[in-house]
Amino acid sequence: MNMQANKEMAKKNIPTKASEEFRNFPMVPRVVYGIGSFSTLGDILMPKRKHSEAPMIYLVDDVFENTEIINRIPSIFCDQIILISADEEPKTEQVDALVNMIRETYTELPSGIIGIGGGTLLDLAKAVAIMLTNNGSASEYQGWDLVNKKSIYHVGIPTISGTGAEVSRTTVLMGPEKKLGINSDYTTFDQVILDPDLTIGVPKEQWFYTGMDCFIHCVESLNGTFLNAFSKSYGEKSLELCKEVFLEDIEESDSREKLMMASWHGGMSIAYSQVGVAHAMSYGLGYVLGVKHGIGNCLVFQFLEEFYPEGVQLFNLMLEKHNIILPKGVCSNLSDNEMNTMITVAMGMEPLWENALGEQWKSIISPKKLKAIYQKI
Amino acid sequence: MNMQANKEMAKKNIPTKASEEFRNFPMVPRVVYGIGSFSTLGDILMPKRKHSEAPMIYLVDDVFENTEIINRIPSIFCDQIILISADEEPKTEQVDALVNMIRETYTELPSGIIGIGGGTLLDLAKAVAIMLTNNGSASEYQGWDLVNKKSIYHVGIPTISGTGAEVSRTTVLMGPEKKLGINSDYTTFDQVILDPDLTIGVPKEQWFYTGMDCFIHCVESLNGTFLNAFSKSYGEKSLELCKEVFLEDIEESDSREKLMMASWHGGMSIAYSQVGVAHAMSYGLGYVLGVKHGIGNCLVFQFLEEFYPEGVQLFNLMLEKHNIILPKGVCSNLSDNEMNTMITVAMGMEPLWENALGEQWKSIISPKKLKAIYQKI
Repeated sequence: MNMQANKEMAKKNIPTKASEEFRNFPMVPRVVYGIGSFSTLGDILMPKRKHSEAPMIYLVDDVFENTEIINRIPSIFCDQIILISADEEPKTEQVDALVNMIRETYTELPSGIIGIGGGTLLDLAKAVAIMLTNNGSASEYQGWDLVNKKSIYHVGIPTISGTGAEVSRTTVLMGPEKKLGINSDYTTFDQVILDPDLTIGVPKEQWFYTGMDCFIHCVESLNGTFLNAFSKSYGEKSLELCKEVFLEDIEESDSREKLMMASWHGGMSIAYSQVGVAHAMSYGLGYVLGVKHGIGNCLVFQFLEEFYPEGVQLFNLMLEKHNIILPKGVCSNLSDNEMNTMITVAMGMEPLWENALGEQWKSIISPKKLKAIYQKI
Repeated sequence: MNMQANKEMAKKNIPTKASEEFRNFPMVPRVVYGIGSFSTLGDILMPKRKHSEAPMIYLVDDVFENTEIINRIPSIFCDQIILISADEEPKTEQVDALVNMIRETYTELPSGIIGIGGGTLLDLAKAVAIMLTNNGSASEYQGWDLVNKKSIYHVGIPTISGTGAEVSRTTVLMGPEKKLGINSDYTTFDQVILDPDLTIGVPKEQWFYTGMDCFIHCVESLNGTFLNAFSKSYGEKSLELCKEVFLEDIEESDSREKLMMASWHGGMSIAYSQVGVAHAMSYGLGYVLGVKHGIGNCLVFQFLEEFYPEGVQLFNLMLEKHNIILPKGVCSNLSDNEMNTMITVAMGMEPLWENALGEQWKSIISPKKLKAIYQKI
């Protein structure tokens, strides 16, 4: 059919452009926003339940153990709530283990996977939903557009704001060989619930570091070479909201709502752009030292005045206003081998460097230069 | 299944909230943005073609007759391009006639409906896609959530910016008894292509009036009582872009991109808000006099200082900057009967008034008051 149609188009001289040039971006097709909207989850899942033997699987950040949130989860029939620690970055082997466990427990594929938590839990939920219908290990799908089969219905419910994982088409995983996302059209959530009250109680430092993930990826996206008017408009709005949240004195409830929207728009701004220097280098930190993404970005970003002068200035004001003291000497005890791995992982993030510095990025960035920055951290 | 699940949830005392309180908003699941991106249409439609007997039907604004745009449409097999005038607002009977014509011409349901044009063409495409799978006349579905069956795959390609029809869950139609939208989850496009270059050549006044549709619905939404942080963030960004486009001196190409994004975000801002006084009164003008939506909004808005003081001030600056002279005496020859109909249609838009003025809107708005405003137009 496609071949025949292509021939027909060629015959009629219809000009076409390769769609790779213009990404057909998948947006989250359903979103609920509102304080208290978490309570709609039961209603939303109802029509998605295939039958009583095809469960909903809830992957939930274990900080919610014994809290009211757990009681509000509409877990019925053979549904399962799996508590997962977000202390470490999500791993491909963790995804594989969850998928195996689900396959062994149930005779049927689940009706849906629901991630409730921060970026780690959201990314795990996306990856598990993909791997339940695709063979092999999650590590085989790290990269761009390697997923062939539609994932299971999956829902994202963020409980901390900033990563943009609720809206992005990637799920970033630590693999045996690399830290890299499964970037695909099937990664995007089918449904998102944005309830700002779920972010009540996030510890201050985590709030700050995760919010800075958003702030930093907006700075990177807005200063990148890939940017177009679509992504720019989202990035600008997100940046504006970040400034209100982190530099102005606004009410806590207002601040929660604004940061949730900043994260949403910040994630959308990546549709036609990319992150940049801070994310590339933070991937290296994460891979070698297991430093979490949010704080990793901050550790790197403070030393990037050369690339993002205004952004770093604002960042310093934010640190000061919220009395955040970044850890020091993080890279001081690295072996040569570890430092080299870190640099290799960072330099491997080619699209990020190209976005940040253009096609000629290799003339600006060298292992030596990265080493000098890492040594300051 | 649902009943059983509801019972299970009740048994476990899981608190739920009616989803009506928190709308589960359908977003356009796929979007392409970029100058020249119209050329990806062939590639995008390819996998949606059911077989060579199930055509793609293109509804295209007839201003494009004999232009290059027509040659770029990937019309193959038994596809059909239908040129339609946008001189009048779209009508339910026009939708019914198109649907009948398509049903009579083909033995199979089309693979897709593609609307290429301004709000009129986009609304027609949405309505035709719905009515091909739902029985009866389009007029039976004017209202909120009356559509039961999934519509045919449909694509929206705006060629003028401002209405937000490319992203909204409504299609506003003139019916035998009322001008009202088919508001439903099935109305939203499955795919949108945003190519700013398609708006090259729009006549200046039409550009202005349609852009003002966006500006005015942002003012209404941002000043409305239904607003939440989600809609506010979109509305603010859209308003900011409108100000850049209509009050600053920016390059034409930049201006086209910004207005296209303003329209997009403006449409999104309606997700959790509503339009207000200008739209309610403009519906009356449209119903009785056939005044088109964009100019109708402008005709009303100029006299709404009482409700939107800052907005009207900005609007006047925009009129002046672009040397737009609004027509006068539009309502001067109305019969009492016509005036009364106009007022009845306007006052019938209850959600709009409630959004604008709160639940007590009837204590502020009377037929006499509306008459006084209409008489100035």
